[in-house]
Amino acid sequence: MDEPRSSAQRKNDTMARLASDVDAWIATADTAGNGYLLPLSFLWDGSGVIVSTPRTSITGRNLRRGGRVRVGVGEVRDVTMIDGTAEPVEDEPTKEAFAAKHGWDPRNESGGYAFFRIVPNRIQAWREVNELAGRTLMRDGDWTA
Amino acid sequence: MDEPRSSAQRKNDTMARLASDVDAWIATADTAGNGYLLPLSFLWDGSGVIVSTPRTSITGRNLRRGGRVRVGVGEVRDVTMIDGTAEPVEDEPTKEAFAAKHGWDPRNESGGYAFFRIVPNRIQAWREVNELAGRTLMRDGDWTA
Repeated sequence: MDEPRSSAQRKNDTMARLASDVDAWIATADTAGNGYLLPLSFLWDGSGVIVSTPRTSITGRNLRRGGRVRVGVGEVRDVTMIDGTAEPVEDEPTKEAFAAKHGWDPRNESGGYAFFRIVPNRIQAWREVNELAGRTLMRDGDWTA
Repeated sequence: MDEPRSSAQRKNDTMARLASDVDAWIATADTAGNGYLLPLSFLWDGSGVIVSTPRTSITGRNLRRGGRVRVGVGEVRDVTMIDGTAEPVEDEPTKEAFAAKHGWDPRNESGGYAFFRIVPNRIQAWREVNELAGRTLMRDGDWTA
């Protein structure tokens, strides 16, 4: 097991991942208390995790509801976890940036795709058990690292 | 993009992953409709996904409640998704097998660890978009592949 990273290093690594990673695990819930999970392409736009999914899909419905969403980025032994809530994305530049990153524009798809921004309230990053201490990089929307 | 795999091949690949992979993404929900997500070490015992987590942790509380749980195994472009519900594991041989696989016995930890078996109702496996058709390998608890 490597030495635990500093908070500053974890934040750097996290920002690098958010900039370069393609997919994230999106965990949502419905009002009946059922969990749902799907890997989705994402864009980090500096203020949140942009995803696009059919408006009437399970994830789309759960995101629209505004409950807490948890996003996992990275691998199970090098993970960034983001807790946040989703808001609709209406501005075209954000949708353009998403399409440019992925070479895929949901606006051209059938299926009624909607865009959402998952705005983080808390961000944590850890690799192994020796990094569980100090894993919180953002709390109540403010960076602590 | 590779050619889509047959159902039989996907089932083989899925069983191999369940036997050899170490960690899985566990997505749960609470009664207020908030999603939660955590990577946890798992054991596939032939009938379900065995995990262990502190009884009073968020995941532990959500699993005890009996709502639907979704498990992601693999990577975002080679994924097995398992929908199921959790039941408590009380038998010692299952706990032994979990500890043997991971070289880590939650029974020796402080923190009040509990064991759960997430029993699948549906299992799906896909790599890229061309494998979305035919992704369901188990439905209503029965293998279709």
